[in-house]
Amino acid sequence: MDLLRTPFRGVAADIKGRAAWYKHDWIAGLRSGFRILAPTTYIFFASALPVIAFGEQLSRETKGILTTVETLASTAICGIIHSILGGQPLLIVGVAEPTIIMYTYLYNFAKKQQALGERLYLAWAGWVCIWTAIMLFLLAMFNASNVISRFTRIAGELFGMLITVLFLQEAIKGIIEEFKVPGDADHSSTIYQFQWTYVNGLLGVIFSIGLLYTALRTRRARSWLFGQEWLRSFIADYGVPLMVLVWAAFSYTLPKNVPSGVPRRLLSPLPWESSSLRHWTVAKELFSVPPAYIFAAILPALMVAGLYFFDHSVASQLAQQKEFNLKKPSAYHYDILVLGFMVLLCGLIGIPPSNGVLPQSPMHTRSLAVLRGQLLRRRMVQTAKEGLMNRASCMEIYGKMQEVFIEMGSEKNTDSVDKELKCLKDAMVQEGDEEGKLAGEFDPRKHIEAHLPVRVNEQRLSNLLQSLLVGGCVGAMPVIKKIPTSVLWGYFAYMAIDSLPGNQFWERIQLLFIASSRRHKVLEGPHASFMESVPSRTITVFTIFQFVYLLVCFGITWIPIAGILFPLPFFLMILIRQHILPKFFEPNDLRELDAAEYEELEGVHHEHTMEDSGSDSGSCDDAEILDELTTNRGELKHRTFSHREERHLQVHSNAVQPSSGDIEDWPED
Amino acid sequence: MDLLRTPFRGVAADIKGRAAWYKHDWIAGLRSGFRILAPTTYIFFASALPVIAFGEQLSRETKGILTTVETLASTAICGIIHSILGGQPLLIVGVAEPTIIMYTYLYNFAKKQQALGERLYLAWAGWVCIWTAIMLFLLAMFNASNVISRFTRIAGELFGMLITVLFLQEAIKGIIEEFKVPGDADHSSTIYQFQWTYVNGLLGVIFSIGLLYTALRTRRARSWLFGQEWLRSFIADYGVPLMVLVWAAFSYTLPKNVPSGVPRRLLSPLPWESSSLRHWTVAKELFSVPPAYIFAAILPALMVAGLYFFDHSVASQLAQQKEFNLKKPSAYHYDILVLGFMVLLCGLIGIPPSNGVLPQSPMHTRSLAVLRGQLLRRRMVQTAKEGLMNRASCMEIYGKMQEVFIEMGSEKNTDSVDKELKCLKDAMVQEGDEEGKLAGEFDPRKHIEAHLPVRVNEQRLSNLLQSLLVGGCVGAMPVIKKIPTSVLWGYFAYMAIDSLPGNQFWERIQLLFIASSRRHKVLEGPHASFMESVPSRTITVFTIFQFVYLLVCFGITWIPIAGILFPLPFFLMILIRQHILPKFFEPNDLRELDAAEYEELEGVHHEHTMEDSGSDSGSCDDAEILDELTTNRGELKHRTFSHREERHLQVHSNAVQPSSGDIEDWPED
Repeated sequence: MDLLRTPFRGVAADIKGRAAWYKHDWIAGLRSGFRILAPTTYIFFASALPVIAFGEQLSRETKGILTTVETLASTAICGIIHSILGGQPLLIVGVAEPTIIMYTYLYNFAKKQQALGERLYLAWAGWVCIWTAIMLFLLAMFNASNVISRFTRIAGELFGMLITVLFLQEAIKGIIEEFKVPGDADHSSTIYQFQWTYVNGLLGVIFSIGLLYTALRTRRARSWLFGQEWLRSFIADYGVPLMVLVWAAFSYTLPKNVPSGVPRRLLSPLPWESSSLRHWTVAKELFSVPPAYIFAAILPALMVAGLYFFDHSVASQLAQQKEFNLKKPSAYHYDILVLGFMVLLCGLIGIPPSNGVLPQSPMHTRSLAVLRGQLLRRRMVQTAKEGLMNRASCMEIYGKMQEVFIEMGSEKNTDSVDKELKCLKDAMVQEGDEEGKLAGEFDPRKHIEAHLPVRVNEQRLSNLLQSLLVGGCVGAMPVIKKIPTSVLWGYFAYMAIDSLPGNQFWERIQLLFIASSRRHKVLEGPHASFMESVPSRTITVFTIFQFVYLLVCFGITWIPIAGILFPLPFFLMILIRQHILPKFFEPNDLRELDAAEYEELEGVHHEHTMEDSGSDSGSCDDAEILDELTTNRGELKHRTFSHREERHLQVHSNAVQPSSGDIEDWPED
Repeated sequence: MDLLRTPFRGVAADIKGRAAWYKHDWIAGLRSGFRILAPTTYIFFASALPVIAFGEQLSRETKGILTTVETLASTAICGIIHSILGGQPLLIVGVAEPTIIMYTYLYNFAKKQQALGERLYLAWAGWVCIWTAIMLFLLAMFNASNVISRFTRIAGELFGMLITVLFLQEAIKGIIEEFKVPGDADHSSTIYQFQWTYVNGLLGVIFSIGLLYTALRTRRARSWLFGQEWLRSFIADYGVPLMVLVWAAFSYTLPKNVPSGVPRRLLSPLPWESSSLRHWTVAKELFSVPPAYIFAAILPALMVAGLYFFDHSVASQLAQQKEFNLKKPSAYHYDILVLGFMVLLCGLIGIPPSNGVLPQSPMHTRSLAVLRGQLLRRRMVQTAKEGLMNRASCMEIYGKMQEVFIEMGSEKNTDSVDKELKCLKDAMVQEGDEEGKLAGEFDPRKHIEAHLPVRVNEQRLSNLLQSLLVGGCVGAMPVIKKIPTSVLWGYFAYMAIDSLPGNQFWERIQLLFIASSRRHKVLEGPHASFMESVPSRTITVFTIFQFVYLLVCFGITWIPIAGILFPLPFFLMILIRQHILPKFFEPNDLRELDAAEYEELEGVHHEHTMEDSGSDSGSCDDAEILDELTTNRGELKHRTFSHREERHLQVHSNAVQPSSGDIEDWPED
């Protein structure tokens, strides 16, 4: 291995690359002014809510040793460190579900060991963090991030599906518990009489399903037909936290006769109470852990290090997809080093560590792309319009637009600007007449929208600010504690269901249940490209293999202590993918099914005279077509083709004719 | 008025027309054998469930004087009469919401009159029925059904929307009442203590919303991607009653500690208890009603007669739409006469009368069309395949298929058969080569499906059998009483929401709230034709006018006694439509907005570079496109066009080449 012979080569290159941009990272953030608050709050809410939910989960699993206070603190501290010292500032870090699962296994193991017990749980977990940190340092040192290309879709999606299943399990477990008296509760209390635990359970069902349904609906607000654009946009971006707020507020409108304590709310000591303060001094107890257990901590550390290396790299990778057209370099190796440092710190102060999270990291980049696009486009359209008013030639207008582009961009190099704007330039030249003048119908907005490349405002400020806001949540614990727990179970179900679309493994599982006579329905909509390029038998076999593998992984999480090895099958999957799968599947098919990128095809619209004459679906299709063509009142619809097609053509043929129209007639804006 | 001078002309013509087919009506039903049970049970469930729900509504409004027993009995008795003596046997009759509202007003009026009181309520309602019957006789006698073409969409949809609003009101009222102690209840009972009424209310919310959601989902089962065709078809046809069953069964799985009586179930005496038996002898009390009230009954009778005439005719009209391609004549005039007779009978035995119902009537025709299509097609495909095996020419095959068609059809006239099958014949002749032989790829199924006209099995048996089944429900009251009332409130909400799609008034109300920049979204899907042919300002003005009118109508239903006049605005609307609206709207626009038929256009797919450059939607569309192109994990999708288009072409070019392929290679069905 050549990589082993050049330690720190990757880290050094990363530091060199990012250092050159470090000052600009801050300047670019500050230059955005107040507008930076939009992506900041967007990511803050996307990031804080799951951390609160995970905190509640951890609090139940560890009997209150670690709570929402600790998960929020870790997310804030690591976020601040990463935004200042990290390599790629687009990457968002936070306490994630695998960490919660790991800390639960550590707790269950520790409490059963006489030499550890609940008392030394955090100290022992500290040792796991220390070993994890060492392993991450080694991975960074020996340039392990070069293998990032081996983290293919199959392992990532398998892991994603496992998390989905665990979220659902958490949601269902949570709702069932709402009907039960908690183990450590005072049974003589009114609220633990049957009728009130039953009311608590019923309210739990209503709140959790209510949150799930409304959150899923608001998530899609952007494509609603109703409402103003800004409102839909606001609901789509902040709908989920908003719904948590709405349902929490709603839980305070219950009749007065319902005793307080119904519905149950978040269990968490306040950060300034002694039970929260204890763990900051965990470092002092590190050497109370018996040496045998210190070394036993290496095994879980191996799992955690593997998981974090994998998760952190993939989150970073998705935040830097090539379509985002980023200008600043990546820093995979260096970020693993920083991650090691953060894990060490968290271990020493007794809080669960954070790592790079999905989907928040790519969401962050995307929100910055939208912000940037907005600013730039507005200026360029304005410039173009001024040019048109003065009857400038298309090359003159293009020149002005290019100036604006350079002025606002981080790019000073004219050559690369030329390359990026080539499409726009070509399109404009083509529109001009022989004198290079643009016709009256020329709409600069249309061309700029179509040909302007995506630009991302790459800076550190939004990441820093959102981490500070998460830190602020620790102070807001008295308010956060007012959220009913059942709302959080609904939120777990929401996270599970929301993660499914776009997971090709999930899409293939669904395909297993679709009769071949119905496949044309899938092909009519946008669909993954493998559906056309890979034989359906191969898809089926591959999916069943993956599904059985998932069941095995899920089964492992149920094993009491060996469950801690649950990340093992995923590491194994990377090897299986490389060495075993190619023996059973065609390389082309495998490449399609395990494509690094999500490729989608537009749907084809079929006539209703079926091609798949092999099916004996006569009667049913009949009824379906009749259903589609009947109103709910029983009227038959007369369906014809749109007149609009014609009109569309007319509009265009008008546009081609040279016009002497007054310049004032153009649509304003 | 020429019509007045020829009394009974319409009725006589109807009787003559239907008498010729009367024997065939029964033979055609019997010939279908057991298969007739499919449309029978389908219509039975579609018909019985609302009647049960309306019965519960009526029972609450009349303090148990009229209950589900009476609504079921009326539907069964009138259904049997209509199926045997009625003109158009495709028309389904039943107790409908307007009848319930009318009977509620009659009750509220009667109980406040000293001379009537609850005791003479049914006798007085009997007088209303008598007067109504007289008016219906007069309408039939003077050929009033000739004005059926004046019942345009605008009045029908307005009435439909009012019913929707009233259904919703009933659902909300019902759920709120689940939280309260019923007025006539024993307050000392355990189940009326606060905690149990609260549990009852919460269960009510869960059951009603659960039923609403699952019923709406199963309704669309036919277009699900999953499951076998027969299963989806079954769920789509019987999903709603099935869900009532599922939720009712679920209500029996509550923990034992919940006292019986929670959740509340249907209130209804059993049909063989004395309180149910009382009303059969109402006729004896008719003359106990003071004469002033006998004549006062004329006013509500006017409203009921108008409503029934309108409803019955429209339901009959929608059951006989021209696309159903019916062969037997209509009987509008005669059916009004029969309706009068049924109303009279119901009045005399003290049960609420039935009239023609929507959407069950067109559903009935549609289910018979599907049944018939299935049988006919199977035979014709088989015949064609046999012909192909024997290498017959296309004309020989067509001849055999025609024979089957005639054999199975009610049509003996070869000329009209030729006309109906012309499309199929032409298509087959075109496929044949110069010798008239068909190529190996010829698929008879495809051509038969595309070119075979819709045929409906017009008979009386299914209507009779479903009425008998409804009658059987009266005996099944002990089982029906097990349905929780909250499930019925959910069912009311389901009926309200399910009636909206296809109501153009509703579609136009939605349009009011869609920003003009989003209209292209509506045009991309199938949409009503008026959206393209009528200026949007006109649509807006017309819709606001209709909406205000709806509010007025809804307001009238709230007026204590004058509320009985609530059908008046609808009759008025027919006049307004004819004499006033044409003064404010262009005749063409009015014709489009008030079209007798539901016309729909296919959607046009637009490129995402907007045409409506007038909107300043830049930023939001950005985010929306990014949303659409991002998986929930944050990955960007690569979208390209389908390869399938090409393949499709290849398949077709293959098909054109003459093939010497073995005949055995064809797909076996």
